[in-house]
Amino acid sequence: MKNAFYAQSGGVTSVINSSAFGLFSELKEKVPEANIYVGKNGIVGLIDDEVYDLNKSKKPLELLLDSPGGMFGSCRYKLPEKEDEKFYQDLFKQLDKYSIGHFFYNGGNDSADTCYKISEAAKKLNYSLNAIAIPKTIDNDLAITDNCPGFGSVAKYIATSVKEASLDIKSMCKTSTKVFILEVMGRHAGWIAAAAELANDNENTYVHKILIPEIPLNEEAFLAGVQKDVEEFGYSVIVASEGLKNQNGEFYSASDKKDSFGHNQLGGLAPKLANLINKKLNYKYHWSVSDYLQRSARHISSKTDIEQAISVGKAAANMALNNKNGFMPVICRNSNSPYSWSIKESELMHIANKEKTVPANFISEDGFRISQNGVDYLKPLTIGESYPKYRDGIPVYEQLDLHLAKI
Amino acid sequence: MKNAFYAQSGGVTSVINSSAFGLFSELKEKVPEANIYVGKNGIVGLIDDEVYDLNKSKKPLELLLDSPGGMFGSCRYKLPEKEDEKFYQDLFKQLDKYSIGHFFYNGGNDSADTCYKISEAAKKLNYSLNAIAIPKTIDNDLAITDNCPGFGSVAKYIATSVKEASLDIKSMCKTSTKVFILEVMGRHAGWIAAAAELANDNENTYVHKILIPEIPLNEEAFLAGVQKDVEEFGYSVIVASEGLKNQNGEFYSASDKKDSFGHNQLGGLAPKLANLINKKLNYKYHWSVSDYLQRSARHISSKTDIEQAISVGKAAANMALNNKNGFMPVICRNSNSPYSWSIKESELMHIANKEKTVPANFISEDGFRISQNGVDYLKPLTIGESYPKYRDGIPVYEQLDLHLAKI
Repeated sequence: MKNAFYAQSGGVTSVINSSAFGLFSELKEKVPEANIYVGKNGIVGLIDDEVYDLNKSKKPLELLLDSPGGMFGSCRYKLPEKEDEKFYQDLFKQLDKYSIGHFFYNGGNDSADTCYKISEAAKKLNYSLNAIAIPKTIDNDLAITDNCPGFGSVAKYIATSVKEASLDIKSMCKTSTKVFILEVMGRHAGWIAAAAELANDNENTYVHKILIPEIPLNEEAFLAGVQKDVEEFGYSVIVASEGLKNQNGEFYSASDKKDSFGHNQLGGLAPKLANLINKKLNYKYHWSVSDYLQRSARHISSKTDIEQAISVGKAAANMALNNKNGFMPVICRNSNSPYSWSIKESELMHIANKEKTVPANFISEDGFRISQNGVDYLKPLTIGESYPKYRDGIPVYEQLDLHLAKI
Repeated sequence: MKNAFYAQSGGVTSVINSSAFGLFSELKEKVPEANIYVGKNGIVGLIDDEVYDLNKSKKPLELLLDSPGGMFGSCRYKLPEKEDEKFYQDLFKQLDKYSIGHFFYNGGNDSADTCYKISEAAKKLNYSLNAIAIPKTIDNDLAITDNCPGFGSVAKYIATSVKEASLDIKSMCKTSTKVFILEVMGRHAGWIAAAAELANDNENTYVHKILIPEIPLNEEAFLAGVQKDVEEFGYSVIVASEGLKNQNGEFYSASDKKDSFGHNQLGGLAPKLANLINKKLNYKYHWSVSDYLQRSARHISSKTDIEQAISVGKAAANMALNNKNGFMPVICRNSNSPYSWSIKESELMHIANKEKTVPANFISEDGFRISQNGVDYLKPLTIGESYPKYRDGIPVYEQLDLHLAKI
């Protein structure tokens, strides 16, 4: 009897639970006799012997489709290298205890690495395991797959939010604020900031500058550009990746983080850029840091994103049932317009620990905007609305009842 | 022939344009012969002789219902005192030039003051004018009116966003982030932060601490509370008004804003609180500043708020047509549940420059949460969804074609 184990890993998204739904519903249909166990707080739950028994949950699994965050808890936990034999022997004792034959790990780069290590350990220990990674990351930086579930929703959130804020500052700029800066996630890849380009259309420029880690900040060119925006439009709207670098390749926001006493200074990238602009150009500014809000905003998730999140979950189930080990379902783009995609499979060794950044041909010549190629790539990922249920004006986000397995 | 003049003023909201729609549609129905002029960038447009002639706009006025920001431009502009006779004589020359008999000013406290000054100047100059203020402010701090159009939507945005972020940190807290801080608007009144209480329900606490300007921060009690949250729930979610005060009544975020060189330090309240918690409790944190995003988030506006915004616009039209001068339509609450409200009128002299803060009986005993009385007041204001139109995944927010009057 081969049971299944599933866990969520790394920073969560507004649609990671939809992948769990896709996986569970496919397993329940194809192998109804198999038990499904879920790690409480990711792989940590397996190590600590805290796993949920999904059969004990009485509420409908469809609740997973509606709720942001990781309903089973996630973790940031790096597995030791394969030389740590004791660790893997203990881990596989846990898998054996629950008769796990299918192992699913839902995460990004690090999680693909975790899943790869486990698939390799299974071979070495001669344990019959189908270890499948399920892609998830708002950072959109996984190799091989055309895009990552979780990203389309954050792209929709950022483009929508900055378009709204741009209409706000446009109203105020005559007598007040001239510059608005939105700091978004993305420490190594600028995909999320790049999505702000989707706010723009043929008639109107809502976002004037996009700053991404792939292009080290040229302060002089940036300031000149902002000044030109204010002179031409009356205001300038800037979206910046938290991982923006300076010309020396250091994080721009961290480069003078210590004050004269050696204390950490407050604030992040957005206030630092705002301060620079105020000092050099003397413009009144506003800034915002969206942080967790952007990646948990289920109220404005992309329908395409949810469909893809479900699909990679279903595909993962079928790959395991076909006895694949060390694989991940990946999204392939067949055409941009109309957007068409399908799911294929890729070996984890080609994905683990790799990072896909924004390619040069997606970036405008001056480095401050996204090119038409980039827009063509980004646009389909945000399409479609999928509203959660509301009660008394607030989304419900009802959680499953979860019960620990007792074996 | 009495024409009408309308202008938007102060910080805009996601529904201020709905008040313009209510006003215009009522005027067009009741006095179709009257021209409607609109100030470009508020009253500044009248002073600078830049006013839009609404009759020249060909696109449907219904576009106003969908778009955040101030479609005609707003301003921050304080009128001189009544002793400045030259200013008012010039201003009334402008009104006379366009044969304005009805004057509508859509804004908050300062705007009510502007409208009051103009209503008084009209009497003094013996100019027949019906000056009516239309309430609008996300701050919800206008006197007399039970609530202010614009607030219900930001309340819905904040409660929704922090509920989502709370599900996110709940997923991460086992191995990573323990504290999330959301900084919201509100320099003098804590209404917006108070709305975060709506994220909580009988079964779950999503928001653990609410910090408002009405309650000076007791750092010790705050830190002890956060520690207790983390010990009890695994994490703590904090929503803080930008205008939070310290025990001396100074802005908490500004109190040590200068570094040892006298330079302004970066950052605002959220990073400062995060730093305090990290230093004293050593918890990993995330923080977010919603700034313009919260007040322009038309994609999650409250339907109740939009209905009230339209209604005060319509009521303003009828008050002017009944030859009222120096008045404002106000919202009266008839019952909480089911929520029932109606529009009455109030003299501007009772509203201008006054400020309504969160009353003591809306605040929990320990000062860190909102009481049931407060929840009963807040809840109805967020009820109902009103989604904008989307194209290719992004809200459309089409703007009216605007044309300057040429007289």
